[in-house]
Amino acid sequence: MIRFLHAAALLALASAAHAQPKPQPLPAPPAEPPTPASIVADAPASDWRPIDPADLLVMELAPGRSGEERRVVIQLLPPPFSADWVNNIRTLARAHWWDGTSVYRVVDNWVAQWGAGEDEDGRAAPLPPGLVNVPESAYVTPVRPGPEDGRDFVLTPRREEVMVNRWIDPYAITAFVAGWPVGLDDSGGRTAWPVHCYGSVGVARDLSPDTGTGAELYAVIGHAPRQLDRNIAVVGRVIEGIEHLATLPRGTGEAGVYADRAQRVPILRVRPGDELAPGDLPAFEYLATDSASFARYLQVRANREDAFYKVPAGGVDVCNVQVPVRRAAAG
Amino acid sequence: MIRFLHAAALLALASAAHAQPKPQPLPAPPAEPPTPASIVADAPASDWRPIDPADLLVMELAPGRSGEERRVVIQLLPPPFSADWVNNIRTLARAHWWDGTSVYRVVDNWVAQWGAGEDEDGRAAPLPPGLVNVPESAYVTPVRPGPEDGRDFVLTPRREEVMVNRWIDPYAITAFVAGWPVGLDDSGGRTAWPVHCYGSVGVARDLSPDTGTGAELYAVIGHAPRQLDRNIAVVGRVIEGIEHLATLPRGTGEAGVYADRAQRVPILRVRPGDELAPGDLPAFEYLATDSASFARYLQVRANREDAFYKVPAGGVDVCNVQVPVRRAAAG
Repeated sequence: MIRFLHAAALLALASAAHAQPKPQPLPAPPAEPPTPASIVADAPASDWRPIDPADLLVMELAPGRSGEERRVVIQLLPPPFSADWVNNIRTLARAHWWDGTSVYRVVDNWVAQWGAGEDEDGRAAPLPPGLVNVPESAYVTPVRPGPEDGRDFVLTPRREEVMVNRWIDPYAITAFVAGWPVGLDDSGGRTAWPVHCYGSVGVARDLSPDTGTGAELYAVIGHAPRQLDRNIAVVGRVIEGIEHLATLPRGTGEAGVYADRAQRVPILRVRPGDELAPGDLPAFEYLATDSASFARYLQVRANREDAFYKVPAGGVDVCNVQVPVRRAAAG
Repeated sequence: MIRFLHAAALLALASAAHAQPKPQPLPAPPAEPPTPASIVADAPASDWRPIDPADLLVMELAPGRSGEERRVVIQLLPPPFSADWVNNIRTLARAHWWDGTSVYRVVDNWVAQWGAGEDEDGRAAPLPPGLVNVPESAYVTPVRPGPEDGRDFVLTPRREEVMVNRWIDPYAITAFVAGWPVGLDDSGGRTAWPVHCYGSVGVARDLSPDTGTGAELYAVIGHAPRQLDRNIAVVGRVIEGIEHLATLPRGTGEAGVYADRAQRVPILRVRPGDELAPGDLPAFEYLATDSASFARYLQVRANREDAFYKVPAGGVDVCNVQVPVRRAAAG
């Protein structure tokens, strides 16, 4: 919104400094209230967790019009969330099944969708062996009330902590687990599920009871379509290169499919991160959602008090939290 | 997500019909639960309100790479919301002030921003006379408890009804007024304000107490940045052509400004809708938010029960409601 905020802020500080009488020692400038960016910058190394390259998918689209590389890096959800679909996706990636398929459907404020594996005659390419049919019950995963150490909920059977988000939500109680935003139902069955946010990757499917194999995937390129939660499997999120999907032309055919096959965006290859040559994939890390830094980050996301903001929001939508993920500093 | 939902649903209906013994009269197919789209399609003409062309801004960008026209139609907020900024924007549009300026900043999952009016030397073009400086107090507008007829709140001084949204929200009570989603503070001052959703148009500004003239505008092209509510003036929404902004390349300079001036997207012209020649602008209409159709639409947005959905969400984010706006049928 503001065009040169950093420049303006620096200028203001510089002017303030300039107003001080020269010979006197300069007082420390007043501490600026923290911002999400400053908290991320100040988070100690111990609050970051590495992302295993084996948990990444690297999708390379055909170069853009100016010849630019278009690489999309997807982080897969850790178990127990959507585990069987994620296993299918690993199988598909190891089989190089998506190579030569395309992004064939793009709908504004909704999704970009790829896979399909249809040749020019519309026949689907055969799927690799080993894929499983996942039941609808796998859209959610059980949680249990935590032990007597103050934790509200833990995932079963991993006993991983579920950090409940204090901010209210129109759809569900929300929480964070191992760097991921989740919904939570404490009304009876006690379940948790990954939520659809901008950049989330999910498994396209036909009508129930079909749950999709994972061969057709989509990424959210608009406002969080939370009504899909528990109705479609979320399997990951785009951590780099979402713009290569979000800027694609919108499809004008039925349901946003490209009306002309020539508009389809070729997928050169999709590879598991650990199949790439060393040096061809940067290391990534995320801010641990059970860290003190993340707690501060969440608080400031809900209550901005830096110079640009006049009225702190007093809350934050779980999809506006945006768990920090970044390239790790070179070791 | 689903590729051919309509086709599949029709096929299922056709098969069901086919299974009936031929000579017997066919029973009516079971009524499908309504969808947001079916409610919109079934809404009577009396539930739609025309949008005055004078409340539209038509922005034409330079043609795209394939020579395609890129027209963005913006509906301005009705008074009393952001009225002084909207008046400034009308003045700027009548002066053709944006002609020759550009979209110069695009940030993924955030905004596309335009205006600026700087020539190649970085000097701002002079603003037209008559613009007013708007105080920060104008970010909100007063509401009053309603009269004894059951209405909760009315806008002052227009006495227009504020339809409170029953679904909870992390940021505020929310409501709808004359087709627009608003936030609502009932804790003391009783105020309402337009909220930032996908497609919302707002007024870029510098640090407080600057509130922006309206000469630099942005459109939201990602998840609703509700933390900006009451901190920046929302003045309208894109009702057609948002994809021409959402698909623009992301800027790589500071704060997402295009690093190379050649990347800027020229704005050929911005015109008030009533300045366009008859026939050059379709008629638009919105679904009245105090209509029975809208009440049904809202209920179904929060609880999808059609074939694709297994678990109704039980709520809806105010920015996922998406008040229906469409081209009016030719008269």
